[in-house]
Amino acid sequence: MRLTPHINKLIDLALEEDIGTGDVTTDHLVSPDTMGNGAIVAKEDLIISGLDVARRVFECVDADIKFQTPFQDGDRIQKGQKVVSLSGRLSALLTCERTALNFLQRLSGIATHVGTYAAALEGKPVTLLDTRKTTPGLRELEKYAVKTGGGTNHRMGLYDAVLIKDNHIAAAGGISQAVTRIRAAVSDTMTIEVETTNLEEVQEAMDAGAHIIMLDNMDLDEIRAAIKLVNGQCKLEVSGGITLKHLADLANTGIDYISCGALTHSARAVDLSMRINAQ
Amino acid sequence: MRLTPHINKLIDLALEEDIGTGDVTTDHLVSPDTMGNGAIVAKEDLIISGLDVARRVFECVDADIKFQTPFQDGDRIQKGQKVVSLSGRLSALLTCERTALNFLQRLSGIATHVGTYAAALEGKPVTLLDTRKTTPGLRELEKYAVKTGGGTNHRMGLYDAVLIKDNHIAAAGGISQAVTRIRAAVSDTMTIEVETTNLEEVQEAMDAGAHIIMLDNMDLDEIRAAIKLVNGQCKLEVSGGITLKHLADLANTGIDYISCGALTHSARAVDLSMRINAQ
Amino acid sequence: MRLTPHINKLIDLALEEDIGTGDVTTDHLVSPDTMGNGAIVAKEDLIISGLDVARRVFECVDADIKFQTPFQDGDRIQKGQKVVSLSGRLSALLTCERTALNFLQRLSGIATHVGTYAAALEGKPVTLLDTRKTTPGLRELEKYAVKTGGGTNHRMGLYDAVLIKDNHIAAAGGISQAVTRIRAAVSDTMTIEVETTNLEEVQEAMDAGAHIIMLDNMDLDEIRAAIKLVNGQCKLEVSGGITLKHLADLANTGIDYISCGALTHSARAVDLSMRINAQ
Amino acid sequence: MRLTPHINKLIDLALEEDIGTGDVTTDHLVSPDTMGNGAIVAKEDLIISGLDVARRVFECVDADIKFQTPFQDGDRIQKGQKVVSLSGRLSALLTCERTALNFLQRLSGIATHVGTYAAALEGKPVTLLDTRKTTPGLRELEKYAVKTGGGTNHRMGLYDAVLIKDNHIAAAGGISQAVTRIRAAVSDTMTIEVETTNLEEVQEAMDAGAHIIMLDNMDLDEIRAAIKLVNGQCKLEVSGGITLKHLADLANTGIDYISCGALTHSARAVDLSMRINAQ
Amino acid sequence: MRLTPHINKLIDLALEEDIGTGDVTTDHLVSPDTMGNGAIVAKEDLIISGLDVARRVFECVDADIKFQTPFQDGDRIQKGQKVVSLSGRLSALLTCERTALNFLQRLSGIATHVGTYAAALEGKPVTLLDTRKTTPGLRELEKYAVKTGGGTNHRMGLYDAVLIKDNHIAAAGGISQAVTRIRAAVSDTMTIEVETTNLEEVQEAMDAGAHIIMLDNMDLDEIRAAIKLVNGQCKLEVSGGITLKHLADLANTGIDYISCGALTHSARAVDLSMRINAQ
Amino acid sequence: MRLTPHINKLIDLALEEDIGTGDVTTDHLVSPDTMGNGAIVAKEDLIISGLDVARRVFECVDADIKFQTPFQDGDRIQKGQKVVSLSGRLSALLTCERTALNFLQRLSGIATHVGTYAAALEGKPVTLLDTRKTTPGLRELEKYAVKTGGGTNHRMGLYDAVLIKDNHIAAAGGISQAVTRIRAAVSDTMTIEVETTNLEEVQEAMDAGAHIIMLDNMDLDEIRAAIKLVNGQCKLEVSGGITLKHLADLANTGIDYISCGALTHSARAVDLSMRINAQ
Repeated sequence: MRLTPHINKLIDLALEEDIGTGDVTTDHLVSPDTMGNGAIVAKEDLIISGLDVARRVFECVDADIKFQTPFQDGDRIQKGQKVVSLSGRLSALLTCERTALNFLQRLSGIATHVGTYAAALEGKPVTLLDTRKTTPGLRELEKYAVKTGGGTNHRMGLYDAVLIKDNHIAAAGGISQAVTRIRAAVSDTMTIEVETTNLEEVQEAMDAGAHIIMLDNMDLDEIRAAIKLVNGQCKLEVSGGITLKHLADLANTGIDYISCGALTHSARAVDLSMRINAQ
Repeated sequence: MRLTPHINKLIDLALEEDIGTGDVTTDHLVSPDTMGNGAIVAKEDLIISGLDVARRVFECVDADIKFQTPFQDGDRIQKGQKVVSLSGRLSALLTCERTALNFLQRLSGIATHVGTYAAALEGKPVTLLDTRKTTPGLRELEKYAVKTGGGTNHRMGLYDAVLIKDNHIAAAGGISQAVTRIRAAVSDTMTIEVETTNLEEVQEAMDAGAHIIMLDNMDLDEIRAAIKLVNGQCKLEVSGGITLKHLADLANTGIDYISCGALTHSARAVDLSMRINAQ
Repeated sequence: MRLTPHINKLIDLALEEDIGTGDVTTDHLVSPDTMGNGAIVAKEDLIISGLDVARRVFECVDADIKFQTPFQDGDRIQKGQKVVSLSGRLSALLTCERTALNFLQRLSGIATHVGTYAAALEGKPVTLLDTRKTTPGLRELEKYAVKTGGGTNHRMGLYDAVLIKDNHIAAAGGISQAVTRIRAAVSDTMTIEVETTNLEEVQEAMDAGAHIIMLDNMDLDEIRAAIKLVNGQCKLEVSGGITLKHLADLANTGIDYISCGALTHSARAVDLSMRINAQ
Repeated sequence: MRLTPHINKLIDLALEEDIGTGDVTTDHLVSPDTMGNGAIVAKEDLIISGLDVARRVFECVDADIKFQTPFQDGDRIQKGQKVVSLSGRLSALLTCERTALNFLQRLSGIATHVGTYAAALEGKPVTLLDTRKTTPGLRELEKYAVKTGGGTNHRMGLYDAVLIKDNHIAAAGGISQAVTRIRAAVSDTMTIEVETTNLEEVQEAMDAGAHIIMLDNMDLDEIRAAIKLVNGQCKLEVSGGITLKHLADLANTGIDYISCGALTHSARAVDLSMRINAQ
Repeated sequence: MRLTPHINKLIDLALEEDIGTGDVTTDHLVSPDTMGNGAIVAKEDLIISGLDVARRVFECVDADIKFQTPFQDGDRIQKGQKVVSLSGRLSALLTCERTALNFLQRLSGIATHVGTYAAALEGKPVTLLDTRKTTPGLRELEKYAVKTGGGTNHRMGLYDAVLIKDNHIAAAGGISQAVTRIRAAVSDTMTIEVETTNLEEVQEAMDAGAHIIMLDNMDLDEIRAAIKLVNGQCKLEVSGGITLKHLADLANTGIDYISCGALTHSARAVDLSMRINAQ
Repeated sequence: MRLTPHINKLIDLALEEDIGTGDVTTDHLVSPDTMGNGAIVAKEDLIISGLDVARRVFECVDADIKFQTPFQDGDRIQKGQKVVSLSGRLSALLTCERTALNFLQRLSGIATHVGTYAAALEGKPVTLLDTRKTTPGLRELEKYAVKTGGGTNHRMGLYDAVLIKDNHIAAAGGISQAVTRIRAAVSDTMTIEVETTNLEEVQEAMDAGAHIIMLDNMDLDEIRAAIKLVNGQCKLEVSGGITLKHLADLANTGIDYISCGALTHSARAVDLSMRINAQ
């Protein structure tokens, strides 16, 4: 994955908050000349994500650390498998262990969590989308983890796609005015989505030329009616209160997109640990 | 809470990743002259945490936003209660909504999660500690959330307390050498903790003058034996695989500290939402 | 306009490079108690752009400076008109004068330059696009200036739209493979454009589902043939060697987009000056 | 040239604004293992400037890119000549192409523009100076480009030389008071220049000990009179409304310096392009 | 020593303030191809400190500079000894000379100054502590220099230990309330110290459970009485107006800690110089 | 004084290194509602310097703190005088006390130290110059303090004046070649100084057109001979091993400049303390 300046800033923050003025234990007990080996091991079945971030954590502290893995982000790992082999200065391995694991455990946790949602939709012609409900500062990483778990990204932020909600509609004086105004203002390469709560609004958004219409908290009957109404003229997305058990029913309606905040905000960290040995 | 430079950098990262080159929807549809009101509402029972961070998110975008709350971090909120009242430019309320909620939902999620652990220990003479298993970049905030939920903080990072683990012991040539060496090197105000796996090591750590001895993955009988052996000469901490249901049994042994990574790494976001209206 | 963190960093760089360790002349000759007035005046006909950036320059040095203007970015100003009235500390007016003018002159220069292109296309159903040929570090500002001059923005950078060029096509093994691969990888909200040099490629790009097809350096006959071939199934953009005098001919072909690097890379600064008086 | 921290910050801003969260096209279509070659070619006659900046752009994205050139900044290049040869990862060549060219085209554009002014003054005992009318954030680079084109730099900013203008004179109570006051306050290594509009002021500035006297918008007769009056006791600079066609006449007066904002603010980018091939 | 992000930021500031837009002398007179040697030599007897900082200064400007020394921080060097051998680009040696020496001279100055205090306490069972009276921005480095000179560090800052002073006591309503309140709020790993001015306060602080009691500006009789009163139940520190000549008397009282601001705030730079030769 | 971005970065570093994750004592014992007063008092006779820096320290932590002083930097203060009155939140006064004092004590220490040198030269036609031997990161502040103590600044760094030393002369092939080469390369506003060790070199530097000639470690007879030789055609500076007691003798030779590293590198902090009371 590309480690953008934003991601590198976050890695720096993470190392700074942990190391601060120094690793008082390691700095005073482990000689810089002592070399060591390490292994990151899965303690449960998981989808791995964030390997390049973990590698960068070690490189930031010691450019000579060797970080090797036969896996790629998105691979399924079984409990007990060794995911990463490390070698280099023992002191650097000890100092970086927790920060590297914290990244890997959280990102793999999301990938694994998304994997269960993606499995439930296997073979169905629907796209599973994430949302902007991500941990502050980790948006890029968590959206990347969603992809490695089998999901698809909705917009990255407020800047790369239009999403017109009720307040915007009210401010513009109606759906049609809002869409017209925004089309004139933004680049033609930008997707315009409108949030709707009933079929009348769906009709108005479609007529105004929205690319995607979000059906907010509609029940299955309303969703089916919206799909019939729109009839392929634009894309439809369901959103709001999506849980794993509703997924199949929703997908069977023929909806284009299902977006789900729980993919990121309710994933728990998976269990990975690191064994370290002096050479 | 004190918003340190580290926390302010994280807030900046969070706003940058969401707003990027601009909120294309709001910037083109909502006039800067339109004023609005907002309310952040609890959608489930929770312990609130992160109010000052949420306030700062709005202030960063618009210094004139009014953010008012009758609550303090650590207060218990019931489903349906209004937590925060906001007023000011409608555009700023819309642009900041998601970032502010992402902070509040995660930090209150941790506080609420810790609250259930703290409740299980109510009245017992034991201290519940967090670990360094926090989301990268959010260490200060998540440790703060632990406190508002009723927990106590273990060390902030590698720099503010000594924790001697097996690799350090091996590198130093034994527990007693490790403790002696570190005592000579660090300030007298620094706490020295040693990780042990059996009673022999407990004895050696105590003799060497450790302030705290961590009992790593010991069972209840070993823990009781360690407590008897140490007999109040230093503090004892249990760690490793702690779950909610073991807490009472562990506490009843008379142990001083129980540390638990799940307090931070396995908390899910709680549900808070924001209602916004133009004036 | 929204002053994003990126723009604020650029303003900081601009003030730092000019002020450095201090304005040695003003700091030693003008008392901080002396107040003054200023006026920014157009020395030629122009379209103004960058007023909020100029305001921020003054605010960065002295938050109490009053910066008032009856105009908005995009307004046409005639030679001799006063564009901005300023009042506040004389020392701050003197220190900021050049940096504020440098921003205004460059951005208004682009807006004015774009204005002549936009005028040449007045009434024709074609969209005038800018390119990524902007001054390094000023991308957001210069793209904003294009909009205030009557142009439309193409993608902001490499991250917010796909543009498949010959090297990408070769790497993927063909246009159709490239488009298919990219559709699977990126969000559905992302526009996919393909650069083509002959009708065969246009056909292949259209069949593969490109949203926009760029006709690179084609002559008018080829352009007309491409328009006929595509027949409205996707958008067509001409690019390469566009000059003011070709615009009308190009527009008359019925092309959707004309993109032109000269809008930004060949604009000269317009003449604005600042009169300052002590009160 | 020395790539100062300021210049490196600007390069970072330039890469960030273009790459953002990633090069969506290249990242998904070009394997990191594919190697390639590139060539930067002049599409018109020009003076090259900014080679080290362009090299750094590639290095920032991929430290292994080879960037080779037989030329030095300031060399004259003919249309069609290859200026730079590149080899390394194809993906990095594609991602950096536009940002590197944007720097080279702008800086070489200034150098080439200055070259025509310098040529007009060839053999005359006068120094051609730039001004502070540079693109915000690019001061160091554009002043460097002026030097490579055959010009000389006036002060870098407000901090490294004194320039006393009418407002400063008024605030100090006269030219002589201003010069006296500033001499007492600043280092003896600092040059003091005074802006004047008539011979009386020239006399006063000379008597006060100014090192350089600027003749603001004076006609040729006034300039000759000033030169006669000063008679070599200090340096004289003409400024204001200088165009290419006046240069020879001005130089023939025997003036020491001619300063000209158009050197930087009215240069257009020259045409350079990059050919890229996979190996 | 560990070069933390804080220290690296300070090194960057130091190089920026000296080099600014370039080393005008060296950049124009010394070819980048010319290689050279250098030697840093002690011009007086001293304890060396800051070698890794000096090495980093050179590396920041030229990663290829070789910096070799047979010494470690804390070693005693005699007048005339060569401390460091350098080789690499002559231009980089010249540009970095002053900044590297400024670090070494100040840090070695502190180490050497502390060395005279430590020598006066040789063999006595007392610990010599520094204070927070350090040069702003150099806290970590100066505290490190204290250690290399034979001193021990008191807290790094306001964040890593509690020091309750008169204003805190008044705000809390008494020593005992202050200690009780702080114990409930902070981690158990944090040391709590109370500042006292008489025996009554010493008694109260001891009863409240302070780990260290500071005796502020007490005379020898009071100090002896405090020691007798406390009788080893907690640590005692003397502070205030400590000079080299009082040290032995103070130590002979049996006090645990002597803290002394003069260790850092009154050290002068020691004399080190650098000889440079072209190869 | 002007608080440049560089100075503000240093103030931020200073506050960060002291406050870190929070002022654990004050944050838990002093309510944000408690107001207080403070007074900064001189504990010895001194020249005050750095008042604006101290004010900014408080403002950074609490924008509402009132910081009032009847004095200006450079004023002589007598032991016991109150220099600054403060009022505002008690917690902010306590948190900032040490950082503000550390700045004031160091800068006033330099000003006071310079004051004794300046007094020794009172009435003599010689200028007392500082050097680049300043604390890393504090260059601007310490050079400012020198001015407030009655000294004059030599160049700020390597970028704002030329100083040609033996290595530069060797690299260029002689003094005359070095001066000629540099004159062609740098702006005419830049001062050129040459370091010399004997009269032959003085002659050569003068002939080459140096503005200032430094006489390095010459004795009084050589200095007098150099003055006679140069006879006012350029300025002369003595440097090297200057101490307070030589000053008068040196000045009596008629030399133009005396530069002295001890002004900054050997000043000790003066004694200032802060009294704080709750309201």
